[in-house]
Amino acid sequence: MDFEGIEKLVEPADTKMVLLVMDGLGGLPAGPRNLTELEAAHTPNLDALAASGICGLHEPVGPGITPGSGPAHLGVFGYDPVKYQVGRGVLAALGVDYPLTERDVAARGNFCTIDDSGLVTDRRAGRISTETNEEMCELLRRIEVPGVEINLQPVKEHRFLIVLSGDGLSGALADTDPQDVGHAPLKARALADSPEAKKTVDIVQQFQDQAKEVLADQHPANMVLLRGFAQFPKWPQFPQCFGVKAAAIASYPMYRGVAKLIGMEALEAGMKISDEVDVLRQRWNDYDFFYVHVKKIDSAGEDGDYDRKIEVIEETDRIIPDILALKPDVIVVTGDHSTPSVMAAHSWHPVPVLLAGNNCRPDEVTTFGERACLRGALGPRMPAADLMPLALAHAGRLEKFGA
Amino acid sequence: MDFEGIEKLVEPADTKMVLLVMDGLGGLPAGPRNLTELEAAHTPNLDALAASGICGLHEPVGPGITPGSGPAHLGVFGYDPVKYQVGRGVLAALGVDYPLTERDVAARGNFCTIDDSGLVTDRRAGRISTETNEEMCELLRRIEVPGVEINLQPVKEHRFLIVLSGDGLSGALADTDPQDVGHAPLKARALADSPEAKKTVDIVQQFQDQAKEVLADQHPANMVLLRGFAQFPKWPQFPQCFGVKAAAIASYPMYRGVAKLIGMEALEAGMKISDEVDVLRQRWNDYDFFYVHVKKIDSAGEDGDYDRKIEVIEETDRIIPDILALKPDVIVVTGDHSTPSVMAAHSWHPVPVLLAGNNCRPDEVTTFGERACLRGALGPRMPAADLMPLALAHAGRLEKFGA
Repeated sequence: MDFEGIEKLVEPADTKMVLLVMDGLGGLPAGPRNLTELEAAHTPNLDALAASGICGLHEPVGPGITPGSGPAHLGVFGYDPVKYQVGRGVLAALGVDYPLTERDVAARGNFCTIDDSGLVTDRRAGRISTETNEEMCELLRRIEVPGVEINLQPVKEHRFLIVLSGDGLSGALADTDPQDVGHAPLKARALADSPEAKKTVDIVQQFQDQAKEVLADQHPANMVLLRGFAQFPKWPQFPQCFGVKAAAIASYPMYRGVAKLIGMEALEAGMKISDEVDVLRQRWNDYDFFYVHVKKIDSAGEDGDYDRKIEVIEETDRIIPDILALKPDVIVVTGDHSTPSVMAAHSWHPVPVLLAGNNCRPDEVTTFGERACLRGALGPRMPAADLMPLALAHAGRLEKFGA
Repeated sequence: MDFEGIEKLVEPADTKMVLLVMDGLGGLPAGPRNLTELEAAHTPNLDALAASGICGLHEPVGPGITPGSGPAHLGVFGYDPVKYQVGRGVLAALGVDYPLTERDVAARGNFCTIDDSGLVTDRRAGRISTETNEEMCELLRRIEVPGVEINLQPVKEHRFLIVLSGDGLSGALADTDPQDVGHAPLKARALADSPEAKKTVDIVQQFQDQAKEVLADQHPANMVLLRGFAQFPKWPQFPQCFGVKAAAIASYPMYRGVAKLIGMEALEAGMKISDEVDVLRQRWNDYDFFYVHVKKIDSAGEDGDYDRKIEVIEETDRIIPDILALKPDVIVVTGDHSTPSVMAAHSWHPVPVLLAGNNCRPDEVTTFGERACLRGALGPRMPAADLMPLALAHAGRLEKFGA
């Protein structure tokens, strides 16, 4: 059922839901007992929740697809990540906590080096320091183009964020990055035949021309390359579609950002898991849906650190009683994707998921782990987007369809 | 594969299929042994069928969606209930066995009370008796509107059915029920910009104006409110799509009605399950697909009566040998939706399903129950619409796709 269908069925209820996303939760067997990180971890609280609720494994995007963090989260939030694609410029803005709005077009920028004839000799300007990047951005801030506000923000090394803010802009622009040395930066070019795209092309070209002048005496960062133009997307909004007042509790800006794209309110928290639970406790009466994000499981997986991934999973398990003490009507615990430490990368493997709450029909899963979840009521390859309707149903928030 | 795709593959065969729908079959654990109604029931015949066939659980509409009886049945019959939505007026007509045709637009009517200034003071006219309703309908039958035949049928208390019969009508009309007291009945209003909708608006307004005159001296039922206008739908027909001569055996008119919407022939039966099996036996040579409906499992669930639900399940189990004595090539036993007695309502929980017949590849399920079916070959969350193609395949009625 699509968003519109669900929106017609949502009904108000005095129930609270928690979606705990353990980033990169899924794993692969390793270690002395040949268990996955989750199987090896001592997780008595998650096991008890699994025993009381229903379990399974979900696929965030589709079979065999390894998702990035944005699509993986959108899947778990009930959005088809193939239909709702976040542009790279927008993701870059979210990653630095830029307060993007619907009037904005964002792109990733690189400082680069060009030679006297204007050809790129180094696409990353020798990976200048972030400090130099700051100085170059300050120079670029002198650029003025009528009808638009241009915001620049250094990211790291040679990378910066550019945001154009104004009316009637479009993200349908090709990259100006030629992707190889020996070419001049490409002219701005529209990917759609619309007045908005034409207007934005004109602005970007003016920016690029002025940037060449402003940076002419600098070295090695004497030019810019832009890519991943994207406009703040106008998507169905999570609170309206699912009939909940929703908050995102995440230490990292990128995850608050994805949540903001779909209309959740973003609450900052300190870097420890317990900091996030503190925010959950403080704001418990203000919302009825809470997305809580635990990042460091994924970080350990990405680092290929099997033992540390186990430790962070166990640390997360220890905060479960604090969450349950708030008496949520429904709690969903899952990951956005798998990050097996033996692969040291995101992967396509289905992600363990448990849902506990009122009126769960029990299955035979009594521990929370990849192999145990295969026997669960949610099935071994559930589309991630099925999660939200199921959570709403268990929270008594969906009325009957048809008579 | 859509209906057209399946229709291209169906081939004639001298095989017979029975679809036994145990209404509201799925449940939740309760009782002294914490078992679902189906798990607690003594069902040796269903268990033997489960052991010989393939099992699983199906979702009639989608994850988390609690279906009404109409959509739930359509799902089991192979129709996507989100795509094929039955209007409420049509359902009302089916519920009283009205012989609806493609020329008809049906709506639900309420007798209501209006005051001297024409404002509604009671939307249900004090819930007049069904006898008074009959008298009021008799008065309304005096109304004549050129170009259309108007049929009225009392339902219960203040509720009646109105069916407009004629050429070029449309169901795309808004309710005239203002949904609250203190307002006048709403003017008839089109929901589509079509000549058919305009014509029907005109007819309904004339009916409503005349009803006000005809009922002027009555009290408390001195006006009517209409809602749920719907036209007999033109849907793909079950017998053509699936290449079977199909009969519906159901004691209750509503279920015969849904079956008639998709082109099954409806056979009446007495109120006992054995009455339905008698009809099945009598008409065995006349059809090759039989939908048999057992209502009272759902009724017990709706009443919150765990023990009675178990009893009706056991009663159904006892007629299984009579059905098998007819030697169907394929028998499917399932529910249209779950009705856990602990919830005393329809629910979203997946519904146990078994399919037995020729060439079943056995799974490890040996009892028919919610938890047992989780391990079945059909999976824990099968879309209901997958059932019909699987049943046809096991009945040797689908040829090879492609070379």
